Amino acid sequence: MLPGIGLFGTGHVVRVIVPFLREKGFKIEAVWGRTLSEAAEVADALDIPFHTSRIDDVLLRKDVDLIFIMCSPNLHAQIAVKALGIGKHVVCDKPAGLSQYEALKMVRAAQYYPSLISIVNHSLRFLPAFVRMKKFLDEGYLRGPVTVIDVRVQMGSLLHDGYDWLCNDTMGGGILALVGSHVIDLIFHLVGQRAIRVHAVVRTFTRTTKFINGIRHISSPDFCSFQLELSGGALVTATLSNHLPGQLNQEVLVCGGGDHLVVRGGDLYGFREEGMNNGGKEEILYLDVDDIKEQSPPVTDSIPLPYVKGLRKLIGALREAFQPVEDKKGWIKEPVSSAATFDDGLYVQAVIDALRQSNRRREWIKVCVLTEEPDPNPLLSAAVRATAISI
Amino acid sequence: MLPGIGLFGTGHVVRVIVPFLREKGFKIEAVWGRTLSEAAEVADALDIPFHTSRIDDVLLRKDVDLIFIMCSPNLHAQIAVKALGIGKHVVCDKPAGLSQYEALKMVRAAQYYPSLISIVNHSLRFLPAFVRMKKFLDEGYLRGPVTVIDVRVQMGSLLHDGYDWLCNDTMGGGILALVGSHVIDLIFHLVGQRAIRVHAVVRTFTRTTKFINGIRHISSPDFCSFQLELSGGALVTATLSNHLPGQLNQEVLVCGGGDHLVVRGGDLYGFREEGMNNGGKEEILYLDVDDIKEQSPPVTDSIPLPYVKGLRKLIGALREAFQPVEDKKGWIKEPVSSAATFDDGLYVQAVIDALRQSNRRREWIKVCVLTEEPDPNPLLSAAVRATAISI
Repeated sequence: MLPGIGLFGTGHVVRVIVPFLREKGFKIEAVWGRTLSEAAEVADALDIPFHTSRIDDVLLRKDVDLIFIMCSPNLHAQIAVKALGIGKHVVCDKPAGLSQYEALKMVRAAQYYPSLISIVNHSLRFLPAFVRMKKFLDEGYLRGPVTVIDVRVQMGSLLHDGYDWLCNDTMGGGILALVGSHVIDLIFHLVGQRAIRVHAVVRTFTRTTKFINGIRHISSPDFCSFQLELSGGALVTATLSNHLPGQLNQEVLVCGGGDHLVVRGGDLYGFREEGMNNGGKEEILYLDVDDIKEQSPPVTDSIPLPYVKGLRKLIGALREAFQPVEDKKGWIKEPVSSAATFDDGLYVQAVIDALRQSNRRREWIKVCVLTEEPDPNPLLSAAVRATAISI
Repeated sequence: MLPGIGLFGTGHVVRVIVPFLREKGFKIEAVWGRTLSEAAEVADALDIPFHTSRIDDVLLRKDVDLIFIMCSPNLHAQIAVKALGIGKHVVCDKPAGLSQYEALKMVRAAQYYPSLISIVNHSLRFLPAFVRMKKFLDEGYLRGPVTVIDVRVQMGSLLHDGYDWLCNDTMGGGILALVGSHVIDLIFHLVGQRAIRVHAVVRTFTRTTKFINGIRHISSPDFCSFQLELSGGALVTATLSNHLPGQLNQEVLVCGGGDHLVVRGGDLYGFREEGMNNGGKEEILYLDVDDIKEQSPPVTDSIPLPYVKGLRKLIGALREAFQPVEDKKGWIKEPVSSAATFDDGLYVQAVIDALRQSNRRREWIKVCVLTEEPDPNPLLSAAVRATAISI
C-alpha cells in the first residue's frame, strides 16, 4: 500500500507534482499553505481534501505518512526534522535548509530514524540523460580520468510577479541556491568526487522589475560563475545565468583523456578520440523523449523541463521503493537508492556556503562540511572546561 | 601601389595567409624561417622569391615595406621594433610579445613612427558576425547596459606532432596566450570597456602526447576559465578548453536589460524581451557565408575557421588602407581603423599577466597597464636620487 501524502507549499511546483503523484497511485491527503487562503486555493484547484496553514495539522494526520516539503527553504529544516521525529517519510525540495547548520539538523534527524525515507529533491539525478551519462562514466566510456567538467545553465528569471522569498537571498532565493545546488549535487552523483576548494562570483544585476520596484528590492542573485576543485583532481567550471528569458539552455560536459560526454537539454552525446568514431563527430547516445507535454499537468515556465522530467522519474522511483518487499508497516525501509540523501544535502550546503564566502572574500575557499553543531556560547563552554580542569 | 611583403614564420598560418594576400594583390617578396631549411621549404611550397634565416635580410630589403610577423611570440617584439625603426609597416600576430614589457617596447616604437601602420592580428574583430554584433551594440540593440558577457571556446589541441614553442608556456604557447588574447581583445573592441580586476584558473592537464613524451613535457595550458570585471560594471566569464578534439565551438554572449546578442560560430542571433519578437525565440541577425572552402588555401585544423575568416577580412581592410588617398610614399598614413593597435596589444598583455598572477596567487588581481619600462636597477637609481638631493 502506498503512503498518504501531506504537501507543504502552494507554488508552481506543487501544481506540477500532484498530477505526477496521482499518476503513480499516491493519494494526496492534505496541503499546507503559508496563509489559509493560499492553501484553500490550491486544495480547491487540485482537489485535495484537507488544507491548513498550521504545520502540525498536516504532520499529525494519521492518513499522512509521506511528507513532500515544497515550500520556501527557510521552513525546510524545521518541517523535515519534525516530520522524521514523528515517524513520517520525507521528500524535501532543494536546498536542504538555508545553511549548513540547518542541513546538519536534518542529517541528524535522518540518522535517528534510518528506517524512514529521507531524500532531497535533486531531480536532475533522475533525468534519463544523466542516468545514462553516469552509466557510461561508470563503464569507462572516457579513456582517462575526468579532467574538466563544464556546466552552463542559461534561463529566464526565477522570480514571480510579486515579491516573495524568491527575491530574497537570505530566504533561499536566487540562482546559486536554486540551480547551483542541483549542479553541485549532480556533479558529485556523476563522478563521485567532492569539491575540496571553490571559487565564485555571485551577482544580482536585476534589483527591480516591473512588479518589484517599491521599498523592497531583489537581493537574490541572478548570475553566478563558480569553479570547484574536486577530490579526484578534476576541475569544474559552471556559469549559471537568469539573463536569457524565454529559453533554457542546459549543458553538462565531462571531459577525460581526449574523450567527452555531454548532456545538452535532455539529450546525451559522446565523443571518443581513439576510433575517431562518426568521422570525428559526436555520437548520439540518448535522445530525449518528449513525453511530458502529452500529460495534463500545467507545466509552467518557472520550472525548467529537465527538472520537471527528473521529478517525475523520482516519483516513479519512490513508488518502487514503497512496492516490492513489504515489512510490517507496509513498505520497505530501503531508501530510493540513487536519490540524494540528507547527507548529500549537507555536502551541497557546505559547498554553497563556501561559494558565498569566496564571493565575499574574493579568494578560493576550502569546503568544510559541518560535523558538529556550532557551540552557541563558546565563551561559556571555555569557562566550563577551564573550571573542570582547575577542579 | 601596394607595398611588398616580408613574412616571418613558417607555420600553418603562413600557408593560410599567403593566398589571402595574393588574392588582394599583395606581392610576397621574402620569407624568414627559424632554420634555412624551414624557410626554403615554405619559399618553395608558396613560390616566394627570397628566403633566409637572418632577420635583417628580410627587414632591410628595399622591395619589402610591410612586415607580417607570424613566427613564435618570443620574437614578436624584437622584429616589430626593428621593423618600425627602419620605416616598415608591421602586422604582428597575437600576442604582442611575451610580456607587458615587450608589448610596451612595441607601443613606444609605434608612437615614434605614427605614420607607419602597426597592428596586432586580432582577427576576430573582422569576422562579419562580430562586425555586426558591434554595430548592433553601438546602435542600442540591448535595452540596458551590458551586464554579463559569457564566452566559451571549445576546441581540440593546439599542439603539433613535435615539440615546439606551442608546448612551452614561457615561449607564448597555450590556450590563454593564443585564444585568450583574442577573447580579451574582442570584448574590449565590442563593448569599449577594459578589465579592471580579473580572476583565473589556468591548467595544463595534458603534459605528454603520443609525440611529446620524452624528457620534454608540455607546460602550456590547455584549459582556462577566467572572470573579468569591466570598467563599466559588466562581468565577463570565459571558459577556453582544448579538450574537445575534432570540433570548434565558439560562443560569445552579450546580455543587457533582459536582451542579448550571441555569436555562435560565425552566426549572429539576437533576442529582445520587450516585443518578445519571434514568439520568445532568438532572431537570426546574420548567417555565416561559407566562402572559405571554395578558396585554394589549405585551411588546416590547427587554425579555427572564424580566425581564418577574420584574417582574410583583415587583409582586405589592409588593402583598402593602402589604396584610396596617396601621399608621397604612395599610400595613406591612416591605420586600419578598426584593427587592434599595439596599445590594444599592451592592454591585452596586461590582462594576461594579471590572469596568470591570479592563477598563481588564487585571488583577484587588479589589472595594471605598464606605462613606463621597469627600472632595471632600482637600488642604483635610488642611490643616484639620494646623491642628487644631498648635493
